[in-house]
Parts: sequence; structure tokens; C-alpha cells
Amino acid sequence: MAFITDTRILRLHLPPEGFRLDNGEILRQIDVAYETCGTLNEARDNVVFICHALTGDAHVAGEHDDPRKTRGWWDNMVRPGGGIDTNRYFVICANVLGGCMGTTGPSSINPETGVPYGSRFPEISVRDIVEVHRLLLKQLGFEHVYALVGGSFGGMQAMEWAVRHPDDAEKIAIIASGDSLTTQALAFDVVGRTAILNDPHFDGGDYYGHIHPDLGLSLARKLAHITYISNHLMEQKFARRRREVTPEDGQADAKEIFEIESYLNHQGEKFINRFDANSYLRITAAMDNFDLRNGFDSLADAFSRIQAKVLVVALSGDWLFLPEQSETLAKAFHAAKCRVSHFCLEAPAGHDAFLINIEELQDVVKGFLVRQPIRTPTVRETDDLRDYKELVSLIPEGTRTVLDLACGEGDLLNFISEERSDIDCTGLDMVTDCARVVLASGHNAIRANIDDGLKGIPDNSYDCVILSESLQVMRRPDIVLKELLRIAPVGIISFPNFGMWKVRAEIAFLGRMPVTKRLPWQWYNTPNIHLCTIKDFIQLCKDRQIKFDRIRYMSTLLLSRFFNFIGAKNLGASRVLVRIRR
Amino acid sequence: MAFITDTRILRLHLPPEGFRLDNGEILRQIDVAYETCGTLNEARDNVVFICHALTGDAHVAGEHDDPRKTRGWWDNMVRPGGGIDTNRYFVICANVLGGCMGTTGPSSINPETGVPYGSRFPEISVRDIVEVHRLLLKQLGFEHVYALVGGSFGGMQAMEWAVRHPDDAEKIAIIASGDSLTTQALAFDVVGRTAILNDPHFDGGDYYGHIHPDLGLSLARKLAHITYISNHLMEQKFARRRREVTPEDGQADAKEIFEIESYLNHQGEKFINRFDANSYLRITAAMDNFDLRNGFDSLADAFSRIQAKVLVVALSGDWLFLPEQSETLAKAFHAAKCRVSHFCLEAPAGHDAFLINIEELQDVVKGFLVRQPIRTPTVRETDDLRDYKELVSLIPEGTRTVLDLACGEGDLLNFISEERSDIDCTGLDMVTDCARVVLASGHNAIRANIDDGLKGIPDNSYDCVILSESLQVMRRPDIVLKELLRIAPVGIISFPNFGMWKVRAEIAFLGRMPVTKRLPWQWYNTPNIHLCTIKDFIQLCKDRQIKFDRIRYMSTLLLSRFFNFIGAKNLGASRVLVRIRR
Repeated sequence: MAFITDTRILRLHLPPEGFRLDNGEILRQIDVAYETCGTLNEARDNVVFICHALTGDAHVAGEHDDPRKTRGWWDNMVRPGGGIDTNRYFVICANVLGGCMGTTGPSSINPETGVPYGSRFPEISVRDIVEVHRLLLKQLGFEHVYALVGGSFGGMQAMEWAVRHPDDAEKIAIIASGDSLTTQALAFDVVGRTAILNDPHFDGGDYYGHIHPDLGLSLARKLAHITYISNHLMEQKFARRRREVTPEDGQADAKEIFEIESYLNHQGEKFINRFDANSYLRITAAMDNFDLRNGFDSLADAFSRIQAKVLVVALSGDWLFLPEQSETLAKAFHAAKCRVSHFCLEAPAGHDAFLINIEELQDVVKGFLVRQPIRTPTVRETDDLRDYKELVSLIPEGTRTVLDLACGEGDLLNFISEERSDIDCTGLDMVTDCARVVLASGHNAIRANIDDGLKGIPDNSYDCVILSESLQVMRRPDIVLKELLRIAPVGIISFPNFGMWKVRAEIAFLGRMPVTKRLPWQWYNTPNIHLCTIKDFIQLCKDRQIKFDRIRYMSTLLLSRFFNFIGAKNLGASRVLVRIRR
Repeated sequence: MAFITDTRILRLHLPPEGFRLDNGEILRQIDVAYETCGTLNEARDNVVFICHALTGDAHVAGEHDDPRKTRGWWDNMVRPGGGIDTNRYFVICANVLGGCMGTTGPSSINPETGVPYGSRFPEISVRDIVEVHRLLLKQLGFEHVYALVGGSFGGMQAMEWAVRHPDDAEKIAIIASGDSLTTQALAFDVVGRTAILNDPHFDGGDYYGHIHPDLGLSLARKLAHITYISNHLMEQKFARRRREVTPEDGQADAKEIFEIESYLNHQGEKFINRFDANSYLRITAAMDNFDLRNGFDSLADAFSRIQAKVLVVALSGDWLFLPEQSETLAKAFHAAKCRVSHFCLEAPAGHDAFLINIEELQDVVKGFLVRQPIRTPTVRETDDLRDYKELVSLIPEGTRTVLDLACGEGDLLNFISEERSDIDCTGLDMVTDCARVVLASGHNAIRANIDDGLKGIPDNSYDCVILSESLQVMRRPDIVLKELLRIAPVGIISFPNFGMWKVRAEIAFLGRMPVTKRLPWQWYNTPNIHLCTIKDFIQLCKDRQIKFDRIRYMSTLLLSRFFNFIGAKNLGASRVLVRIRR
């Protein structure tokens, strides 16, 4: 099903004194260009507002009446059945203040002078952009939206929005973004802007009606474009290949140039045909100046009033908005006790990968946005079910939040949700697909490796942490135990017992490393790299002053039950559940 | 002790037809600016020639008579007692052809016209630069040098030199360099050059005597400077701090700018005062066009005639010349059967870290250059000595090259060198300090992690590989064994036997994970994550069709010797030596 969208322009109803910008200046008239796609439901509660990136526009998706721009900039994400499913959601996207794609900006006519603003257009901030979009929504009749979604600079807008107006949205998705630019990204912007200012045609910004500073704007765009993609992608697409010069390259004397040069020339050329240098200066300045920490003690403080569910997605190959920046965000959301999910997706292409078709990104966003998750009960074996029941019985009364480490596809979390619906569940797994399933099941999800990833979770982020059958997979089980009791006051651990009679017998009598039902791998390929017996574990707890107040010995085999019965638990139990406390 | 150097200018004795450049054009007159420091020894065999980086000059080190430039650009490296020790070596450094620091370049007077070359100065190549420096050395009376050392663009020159004239040097050190630029680095150069060409004062390159294209050159430098340092360093030095505008910033209307902007302004300003735009265009073009593969089937083919010892050093935080590029070089040197050492040093500051004082870089270069290594025999325990003797006895006759994996500080390699002086030894260790000691002991050294690092070593790079007491530390011992027999036809493995009676007894009777002399760690912090018994190991060899033709059972304890004596080797041996073959 094709769906058609059209950019509409709405003139905002401003108060008589005009719209007061962040810096105190006034705009007397503001037009906003916006598009919608999908259908508004009867309850009017399925609005997803998309904040566009630096040089984007309102035309986020769908066919367009202008044949030159048929496809929207996020067409693969925003479509029927897509990550942001236009069969379910009513999507709104608007051009930002200061832009040049329909919303009031430096190239708009200044109503006071009758000529374009040019140099007179005021400096704007991300907050100004957000407030204008809020006015748009209000005028369209929406006080709330279901979700705010933004990538890159759009993520900054979404966060600013959520911080200033925490009740405006139920869900906030922040993709490949940060609380501020890195110093390196600032540096690139500085150089890009200098290229525009150096252009003799710039004329202080009042070039309308004359030659535009195209050389400067084109150079700024070429430079910025380098930062949008990874070296990996460039090597793949262009390597060191050369090609014949075309008129677009504008180099009469050279016969051949590197393909990458030709590609950048093309990017520069495309850009000057659709963008305005003053808009570029204003919007990049807003991005450079954006710092979510401003006015707050910390990021966590800024986030502290947010009740919405939050999704933070980083891209592995992004070197403009670093995965570390998303980690910082996720950490602050944790510290603010927000319900946060956090993914770093494989994206070797770099920052712009979020605009290209990343299957995983669609799945993650789709899973995050889903309103009524359908969970399939997937516990298959009675042993597991017995263990789950024991485990849930160890979760202390009054527990509100649980984090399950190495959660897999969330079987245990689904079980916990059924038994204890008052608990908000979060699953952490290093396998993206697992974390994704957990997210789509309505839990919070974190894609991380336990060995490194727990440092990203602040102290006391959860009431209870579970580490089920994975202690022995850790590089340093002792450190993980310590980390567990840092991020939560209570931990529940289960692990296979290397002291079980069958294991002992195999080593002692066969002289072979044991292979059992619970330890099914060979010595050389087993992920179980730090096995221990119950005695070993208890000794470690004693050595490290880790208290444990509950211990459950689980066994399946008849002989095991016998050993357990006579009290020889270290011989009998094939696995153990222990509740530890600080 | 201070030492004074002075730039001297030498006019090359060119043949009557002039100097024919790589591109066929002719230069009739070439001056070369060079400096020397240190003292030439009587044998005249202690010359170290340093190839400078992109915008460097001959003034590599030492105090200068010009008070404005007292320090050389590599003062911390090239000094008495430094990484390139001027007490030992006679150091020569010369400005490159096309430059503007004394050697003939675009700003030099064209003898045919009496005015500066400007746009008439020909395109030059890295080969041209190298040939000019060879002519310089010849004219100074040197047919050979002890070592060629180059960082960044200098590394490219050193490699070109070694490839074209493989007998010119005994040692070649390549630091933070590559066989060609990455596509991303090309892209940055393209944008930087465009900034110069866009400058209205550039005037096709014939701006001498008029206003120079300073805005363009400054912008190119600012951009390039971003690539010389890491974001990490920028965050540390500048973060998002702002400062008042100074006249240098040239922005009359702004009150405050980001410190990073001010810093870049300063870099641009400094640069236009010392560098010429045409030189920048010519030299960056030479670098962009440099591709060591040109004219060869492969890099390994290019390196195949090199007899010199080679050192390749990468910097971890370098994103202009990537550590992967150094890996590619090291791999090709391996494939060409060169004696290669390879390090990736921690350098969070980025590419320019090689110019700053990195202690480790000095140590590595110093160790590599040392002519007469002094090895201290460090075998301490008789057990080790017995093992070493057994191990050396397993190295097949006719073995010319040995690689010791997880070599530590090279005790075993020193022992092998003593016993079998015909063998060229290489040590691999993940600890930089260890690899450094091995290098300074006169062996080749590779800093790498066995689990990931062996993929960088091509098939059949060595005659024999040793993995002593480290199999159990590997993430995947089975894969490592396969890798061993890929990079060499013969492997010698030693490992602790988990089937030894003492181990078995501890698990069976005490129900605890064993702690023995050979396995001294606790279950939770042991690096021994994949232990096995002799039986397990033999079974793995059978399963994977790995042949073993020698096996030695080593034991210390009396009871062990008894078990060994009665043939119960899996009970008796505390450790095992096995020779495996394809």
C-alpha cells in the first residue's frame, strides 16, 4: 500500500508579544512545515513525533507530489510494517526552526523588513526548536504524544523535550545521539563554519539576491559528510580507485581524481542545491551549544523527572556520536531511576547507518514502541520450571525492579512478570537478538557483556539482580559478584556444582574433564571457564564478606537426591541457588 | 650535555641532463637542507637517517642558532641517551623535495626563470623524495646506513627506500604509518586542498610577491590537525570549555568561543607563518598518491628483497594511520619472510603521540636499534631448566626460525639462542614490557594476544612454534592448536596435566577446585580457563587429526615419578611436552 504525504505549512498562533527565544530575542511570526503519515486512532493516543537530524526536513517518509523528492529521508523506518509502523502509529515530522525547508529560518522573509532575515536571523537553541514543535502539536490538538523519536541531532531534541516537559510522551527513543557534541565533533563544525565565513560571497550572511557562498557551504558539507560515514564504508565503496573528472568536479586541469573526491564533490553539489548557508550556520551552532547538563547538577538530575520509558541506541561504527556517549546517557537514565533500555548495534557504516536500512534498528525500535507485548511462555523443561519457581521465591518482598543478567530471550523474566506483576523487569544479554526479544516482550533490555558492561550501571540501580547459570562463564566471577552487590542490594545466583559426585568421579577415575548434562561442553570449547564447587563458592563468600541468607540445592538424579538427603550437598546438588546480600 | 646542530644546504651534483622525476619531468637544480647530530664512528657504520613527517624539516633535534626554533621536532627521541641515542648514532635528517624549509620546492627560485616555481613546480612522488635523499647521502659519502627511521609520512619514505634499495640499510623502523592512506585520510586531504584552491588569493599557485592564500592554508591545517590528535586528547585538553576571543581568532563579533576553536585558530596561524601553500599541495599529493603496492603483485612481493630487520610500530589511538594498517604491514613482512617485529603501543593521544614523549616508543626504538644485545640468563628453577632442555631437544634439525608464543621476557628464547645459535628467534607476548625486553635482547618481538593475534601471521611464517605452559590460558585451545599448525609445520606444546593424582584427589575427596604448584590460582581468578588432562589432549589431537610424534612426561614429586614409572602417566605427570605436526 502506497501512502502519500504532503508538506503542509502552519502559521503558529503566537502571543501578541511574539515568540521569545532562549537568548531573549523575539520572533513575531513563525511558520512550521510538517508532514504526517499513518492514521490517528480514535483515542488520539498513537502519535509518534519524529525529530529530524541536522539537515533533514519534514518529509520523513512516503511518496511526495514533488517528483524530485519521492522518498522520505527515513522511508525504510517509517512505513507500513516498518520499525515505526504507519499501520499502527500516526507519525508527525516537522522542519526545525532556523531551517530552510518550510519552517521559518534565515532565508524567510522578515515581516518587519519585507526582505529575508539573512544576518538578522537570531541565534537559536535546541530548546527553541522543541518549543516551536510543541506549539505546532498544540495547534494540531495534541497535548501528549505516544512517543518521541530522534536520531543524531534529533535525539538531542527528543531529550531536551523530555527533560523540559517530562509528561509529554510515554516513550522516548534516542538513536546515535549524545547529551552534547564531543570536542572532536565541535572541532569539525568549527572548521566547516569557517569555510562558509571565509567564502567571499558570504557577505556577513546577507547574500540573498546575490551569488551564494556555495564554495564554502559545499566544503563544509564535504567535511561533515566524512564524519557521517566510517572509514570502513569508504574503503568498501571507493578504496583508492580513481575515475575520470566530470564537469561536476570542476577541475579542468586534472584528468583523473580519486573516486572519494568525486563522491564528496557530488555530496557538496547536492547540498548547495537544497540547503541555505545561514540555516547551516544557525542549526550547527544550536547543536554545538547544546549541552543537556546546562542548568542541572548532572545528567541524572536532568533526567530525574522523566517517567517515560527510554530507549538509547548506539551504532558501533559511529565516530561522530560515539557509542560511549550513548553509554553515558544510559548510565544517567539508570541513575535517574528511569526505565531504560540500551543497545549498541553493529553498524560498520558509521553514523549515517541509522538512516540506511539497518534491519536490527527497525526491530529494536519496533519492539520498543509495541504497546501490548505478546509473550509466549517458553519454559520447556520441568527442571527449569522448578528452578524458576525456587528462584522467584527468593526475590524479596517489596522488590520493584529486577535485573536478569545473561537473560537470554527472557524466559525467566516472563515467568517473573507472570508471578509478580508488580515488578519492572530488565534483561541484560550480550546477544542482540536476545535483548531485542526481551524488549519486544515489554521488558527493559540492555545489550551488554556482563564482564565489561556492569560498570555502565550505577550503584543501586535495581532492587534485585539475578545471575542464573552464568557465574562460571564470567572472566572474573569474584569481580562480578562484587559488581552485583554494587548495582543492587540483593543478588540471586545459580550455578552448576563442580563438586557433584558425577563430576568428581569422571576426573578421579577416568582422568578426563567431565562432560555432564549441565556441563555439556568439551574442555577446549566450553564457555564455562570458572567452574566451582559449592564449598568453593561458600569459601569465596566468606573471604569477600559476602553474606548469603538463602541457599537451595537442586538435583535431578536419584543418587544426587540421596546425597542431598544425607546432607552431603556438595556431592549431591547438580546446581545451587544462593541469595547474597551486602 | 647540550649539542648544537645547524641546518646546512647542499646543492646536489646532478647529471648534466638534470634529475628526472618519477613523472618524467626534469629538475635542473636541487638543494637539500639537512642536519646531523651525534658523532660518526670510525667504521662509518652508525648512521641513522630519519625521514620526516608531512610538514617537518631537517631540524630533528638539538639546539638551534635561530632562537625562534630552539627545539627539534623529535627532540625527546633524538638525544643523548634517547630512543635514537646521539651518543651511539650519527643521525641525519633532511628536508623533503617539494618542501619549503631549505630543500628545493615550489617557493624556490626556478633557475630557468629567475622567479619562484609556483605553479610550474612539478608533481613529485615519495620515490622522488627518497632518491633525492639517497643522492644527499652519496654526496656525503654514505652508500649504506645503519638504520632508516620514519614516522607517519616518514614511514612511507622509509618503506619506499627499503623496497627500491633493499641493501641500503640494516634496520628499518616504521612508526604510525601505512602502505598507503586510508580512504578517509584521502578524503580529509581532498577537503584540505580544496580549501586552498578555493582561496581567491591562491591564484593558480602563483601568489609569491602577492597576498598568500593564508585563509585556505590555515583552514587546511586546522582540519588536518584534528586528524593528528584523538578525541580523547581533545576532551582532556579542551572539553567544551569556552574562552574570550583574542585578536588571533579574528572574530570581531563574538565574545566567547570554544577553546578548541581558539586552539585550532592558533594552529592555523602558526602554520601559515612557517609553511607554503604550494609545498603543502605538492607534499600531500605525493602522500595521497603513494601506494607501495604499485608495480608489485602484493605488499609481500614488494618486501620480498628486504634483508634488513624491520620494526613496525602502531599507536593505539591513531585514527589517521590505523593500527590495522601496521598489522597489514607486519603481515606482509611476515609473508615476505622478513625478520619483523611489531608493536601496538598505548597512545590515547592519537597520531601525533609519536612526536610527543612516549616513554614506551623510545624504549622500543632503542631496543630495536641496539647492535650488541646483552642477555642476562634468567632461568631460575631447575625444573624450568629441565623443561627448557627437553623442549629444545624437540626442535627439529634444520629449523631456522622459531616463534615462542606467550614468551614472557624471553628466558626460553635466550636459552634457545645459546643452544642453537643458527635459529632466528621471535617472541610474542601480550605484555608490551615483555615484548620490549625480548626485542632489546636481539630477538624479533611481537606484541599481540594469542587468541586474536595469530590471524595476523600468514601461513608458514615460521619453521617451528612453541606454546609453553599457556594452552590452558587460551579462550579456544582447539583453535589455537589449529592456528599453530597453520603458521608453522611443527609445534611444541607444554601444559599442566589436570589428570595428575594430586589434582584428582583434591576434587574427589575435598570437593574443592585444586590449587597446586603448577596451578596456584583460585577458581575465580585463575587465568587457566581451559585445563585438560593428558587423555583429554590426546583425544583432541585424534579428533582433529593433529599428529604428535614426541611426548615427554615431566614430574617433580616422588609419587608422581612412581606413577610415571609404572606407566600411569596421566596420574603421574604434572606437566607434559608434546610435539605436534600437520
